[in-house]
Amino acid sequence: MLSRLVAVILVSLISLAPARGAEPLPSWNDTASRQAILRFVGRVTAAGSTDFVPVPERIAVFDNDGTLWSEQPVYNQAAFIVDRVKALAPEHPEWTAKDPFASILKGDLKGALASGEQGLVELVTATHSGMTTDEFGATVDQMLELLDYLRANGFKTFIVSGGGTDFMRPWVERVYGIPPEQTIGTTADLKFEMQDGKPRLRKLPTVDHVDDKAGKPVGIHRHIGRRPIAAFGNSDGDLQMLQWTCAGAGARLCLYVHHTDAQREWAYDRESHIGRLDKGLDEAAASGWTVVDMKRDWNRVFPTD
Amino acid sequence: MLSRLVAVILVSLISLAPARGAEPLPSWNDTASRQAILRFVGRVTAAGSTDFVPVPERIAVFDNDGTLWSEQPVYNQAAFIVDRVKALAPEHPEWTAKDPFASILKGDLKGALASGEQGLVELVTATHSGMTTDEFGATVDQMLELLDYLRANGFKTFIVSGGGTDFMRPWVERVYGIPPEQTIGTTADLKFEMQDGKPRLRKLPTVDHVDDKAGKPVGIHRHIGRRPIAAFGNSDGDLQMLQWTCAGAGARLCLYVHHTDAQREWAYDRESHIGRLDKGLDEAAASGWTVVDMKRDWNRVFPTD
Repeated sequence: MLSRLVAVILVSLISLAPARGAEPLPSWNDTASRQAILRFVGRVTAAGSTDFVPVPERIAVFDNDGTLWSEQPVYNQAAFIVDRVKALAPEHPEWTAKDPFASILKGDLKGALASGEQGLVELVTATHSGMTTDEFGATVDQMLELLDYLRANGFKTFIVSGGGTDFMRPWVERVYGIPPEQTIGTTADLKFEMQDGKPRLRKLPTVDHVDDKAGKPVGIHRHIGRRPIAAFGNSDGDLQMLQWTCAGAGARLCLYVHHTDAQREWAYDRESHIGRLDKGLDEAAASGWTVVDMKRDWNRVFPTD
Repeated sequence: MLSRLVAVILVSLISLAPARGAEPLPSWNDTASRQAILRFVGRVTAAGSTDFVPVPERIAVFDNDGTLWSEQPVYNQAAFIVDRVKALAPEHPEWTAKDPFASILKGDLKGALASGEQGLVELVTATHSGMTTDEFGATVDQMLELLDYLRANGFKTFIVSGGGTDFMRPWVERVYGIPPEQTIGTTADLKFEMQDGKPRLRKLPTVDHVDDKAGKPVGIHRHIGRRPIAAFGNSDGDLQMLQWTCAGAGARLCLYVHHTDAQREWAYDRESHIGRLDKGLDEAAASGWTVVDMKRDWNRVFPTD
């Protein structure tokens, strides 16, 4: 009798083990959001299902700021620029008299932004060489699990961010497992030229593409040429990307991360200056998109939690 | 004695079989061009070699017209446009009085081209929906073998073409095994807009990017964000792409297909209006790039040869 019980327990443990080991999205509580993701992936990957999507068409697009990593209290790229301007200032004495650099060195971010788009491009150009991301904010853990889970199911994952493409590319592969060629962002115009017999690409002080809001579906078409079947964002800047994704035929997943967790991360939405989520919340409710409630749906936010 | 001989023969056959089955580039004669390709791939893939390149950095870029398929006597895309204008004319009675359509319907290609870039964009916009490539010219066989061989060695293959991106994307996956998101070409500006509550991307009559000559390295950086280690072209329009590729550090392969075979395909170079190869031939000689002599180096050109 005892030996039979032991056998039953052993069998239970053995049969549980692989299921447990393979259980996806462990940092997600088993709420409606997690269920919506699992159900969607199940539908598009089940051979013979009417919603089956062949592997090459399993395109998933992710916003970066506020979705894959934190964007509060200030965009990482902005913090990075400020740090870099300060670090590089000794080599550039002219910056103390020249905006936008002078304003930044005085701690006057508003003044720096007053120099407009051209000023921003100058800043990015001056600060974005040889950067690493070790000093950056934490990457959100569940989104890494989600990236892994989708890729394990044949998805090709892309970043579609308002951030600078050249700012992201040096580290996205290491941090997210997303190669530079699957990174779509804001770009400056480039010029190819020969200098002393050597070819080089020079960044021009004009903007080629602003990959935000209506620019996101444009960037997606220009770069991927297929409509994604899944899109993940957190703000009104992602609304058009989600609209474009979910307007396609067949099973689609549009998901908003709603920052509701002031304790572990940040809580902000309709009134925020960074990552405002206002129209998006309304449209998500009207269209039945998935809205992650960070406080409720995630049992961990950062790897250190 | 006999049985020993049989055993030796059997062992020889067995040990030969896999090598023979796996022999790369069977349509290429074993000349210097083929050897250069094999040597390059051997160097960048040999673990421990000083020239070893990790898989994610094995980026290879291919021109399309004249490299992956024929471009003589006229670009396939141009032939396609003419066919489509004729086929669609009954639905567009206004075309008989409106250039560039009127000129094309009269068989006056020169007149059609006189309407300049805007006319060309109008033509492409009007004719490039729902197209297939069944009526197109043959794909060059050895380049398919080369694509396969590189991919089998961990390379990611991209098309970098002066042709329209939206013209190529519907069929490149089927024909070349290259997905739409690895297809870089000439693009029109796009505008995202909502129409009757549905999102759509509208092509504008302005050019976003001309992916030819100095535009090729720009397209490569914009799209891939890594410098390729191998580049394949056939004309002066590919020169900057090859310069950009081979100016990088480490082992590089820059290869020109020189059309020298008037009997099986076409023979043209310095004087040709389509696919002129003039400066490129000089630079290839000066820089030691590989130049394929189609007549000498390829034992087949098309699958039907």
